[in-house]
Amino acid sequence: MSKKNKSALTEKDGVSQPETTSKTSAKKIQLKRRKQTPTSEYVTQILKGNITFLSKAITLVESTNAKHQKKANEILEACLPYANKSVRIGITGVPGVGKSTFIESFGKHLTSLGKKVAVLAVDPSSSVNKGSILGDKTRMEQLVTDENAFIRPSPSGTSLGGVAQKTRETIILCEAAGFDTIIIETVGVGQSETAVHSMVDFFLLLKLAGAGDELQGIKRGIIEMADAIVINKADGDNAKNAKIAKVEFNRALHLYPPKENGWVPKVLVASALQHKGIDNIFSMIDTYITDAKKSGFFNEKRNQQNKYWLLETINQQLKDNFYNNPDIKNLLDSEIKKLKESKTTPFNAAKRLLGK
Amino acid sequence: MSKKNKSALTEKDGVSQPETTSKTSAKKIQLKRRKQTPTSEYVTQILKGNITFLSKAITLVESTNAKHQKKANEILEACLPYANKSVRIGITGVPGVGKSTFIESFGKHLTSLGKKVAVLAVDPSSSVNKGSILGDKTRMEQLVTDENAFIRPSPSGTSLGGVAQKTRETIILCEAAGFDTIIIETVGVGQSETAVHSMVDFFLLLKLAGAGDELQGIKRGIIEMADAIVINKADGDNAKNAKIAKVEFNRALHLYPPKENGWVPKVLVASALQHKGIDNIFSMIDTYITDAKKSGFFNEKRNQQNKYWLLETINQQLKDNFYNNPDIKNLLDSEIKKLKESKTTPFNAAKRLLGK
Repeated sequence: MSKKNKSALTEKDGVSQPETTSKTSAKKIQLKRRKQTPTSEYVTQILKGNITFLSKAITLVESTNAKHQKKANEILEACLPYANKSVRIGITGVPGVGKSTFIESFGKHLTSLGKKVAVLAVDPSSSVNKGSILGDKTRMEQLVTDENAFIRPSPSGTSLGGVAQKTRETIILCEAAGFDTIIIETVGVGQSETAVHSMVDFFLLLKLAGAGDELQGIKRGIIEMADAIVINKADGDNAKNAKIAKVEFNRALHLYPPKENGWVPKVLVASALQHKGIDNIFSMIDTYITDAKKSGFFNEKRNQQNKYWLLETINQQLKDNFYNNPDIKNLLDSEIKKLKESKTTPFNAAKRLLGK
Repeated sequence: MSKKNKSALTEKDGVSQPETTSKTSAKKIQLKRRKQTPTSEYVTQILKGNITFLSKAITLVESTNAKHQKKANEILEACLPYANKSVRIGITGVPGVGKSTFIESFGKHLTSLGKKVAVLAVDPSSSVNKGSILGDKTRMEQLVTDENAFIRPSPSGTSLGGVAQKTRETIILCEAAGFDTIIIETVGVGQSETAVHSMVDFFLLLKLAGAGDELQGIKRGIIEMADAIVINKADGDNAKNAKIAKVEFNRALHLYPPKENGWVPKVLVASALQHKGIDNIFSMIDTYITDAKKSGFFNEKRNQQNKYWLLETINQQLKDNFYNNPDIKNLLDSEIKKLKESKTTPFNAAKRLLGK
């Protein structure tokens, strides 16, 4: 027996070993290995459309470890020249409107046309209830087995800003991997739809016929963000209601000012379940994108969005630095109390807080 | 002749004196005198409803001089316990919709009911074109001579935040002076209507019949802010169109989610010129306010608005401190250029800027 083999770490045959590997440390080792793969290898494989490397790179993007983030940034900057070539579509709607079924039907239609589709999600709440809206991939059982589709659940994270950043970076990686259509799903009840609206070329709002109860959950302002409203579940007894709703929404949208580029939002009906109306929706988006590219609006909007995210990231960080200071937290509470008691004005209170 | 009279400053009879007093220095002397009046005197006079002192105090609020601001703050904090008792109504609409005529007619109706009405404006552009929307008081010739009405043009200022702060502080002074209804006018084409929406209890959007061209100028999002839409100029040949527009808007607004407090925005028609429909508008607002006070929503909203302005003021200052740094300005320009050329991501660019 050589000296080397005398190490205390040598396993003895027949002696059971304690379970020392936790899931967390296994994950760490995996990520460490991933880190050791050179950036150039990641980039080469992603550009080839290698899904395994794409997934690994996204995991690096989503990691909170500083070394992984450094690596992720190297990969991202190397992929950037190959990104930006897709069409990015945002899809929102309250729970129950049939988002998953719609995305499955719409995604299958796209792949049948020879497109490569990536489906991402922005759902900051997923970190709380551990149930990402795309987590349960079984809800898209056909799309998940389609080799031209890539489905990635919402990254976890407590802050919307963090989740949005990770999603934006994932878009770049997917585009570099050759996905020409990126669908970003969000649930239209919180702040996340504003973030998604600021990262897509076209924003689709799914609704149900019978404008009543289902409106309660939706946030004011979403309708004005939409480039199109699709009235889903227009099948069976609902088909007639859907057509009436279409007329009503069309009339309503015409009372609104058109979008910056002159686009008047459209209203369409669809039955994702029966795959009806899906082709019309794609044609509409296709026409919109073609026109937007011709007029230069497409690039202009993407530049504006990049600038928006740059400033938004800075502004968020400035606020975090300020409000996370424990002295400020205490003073803020007491100033808000004073405001309620009419003992100061918001501007004097702000001055005192900034004086700290 | 006593020694005192030998001063070089003594005027000699019959010798013409150079014109040494410029308007600017005269103003300075005026303001200096104003400063010397004790705060308690201002407060006593304002609480008595003395319009001269109210105007002087507003001039202090609007001054950029640090000493005047200090004085203004003392007056404001002393007036605060007597403020907050009015109903604050925001009125917006594109130029040509008849805002001045409407406010005159509405204001006269209010004073005829025994109310005291203050009319203010938020119009940051007024500093540029020197033409405040309320500057030409002759457009409200009846209201301006009404002893129960007080009209004050928009304060000048390049930043919306500054103008909004001055207006909010002016509201406090007007309330302390006994004005029970504060009308705040803004032109609905820029950012100012969001600011006004955040300082009023009820937000009214004026529109014209024949929803078409006049919509072009209005900003998207305003309709969702409105608590009511008034279709103005519903007289003569236009009366019929106004009624049709009313039906259409009513239908459209019912497709939208109701407001936080369950309020479904109303649509009314009016002819400010012929004083028609003005009483209905007042009744509607009165009902709204009564209900909001009963449910507690009225106070809750005011508390939220105070908090909004506190945080907004801080956040604006944090941004100003950062972006006004010349190093940041230069780096920001080059990072935006890199973004356009797809050489970096918004998040890496932000990191570099924050690293400065």
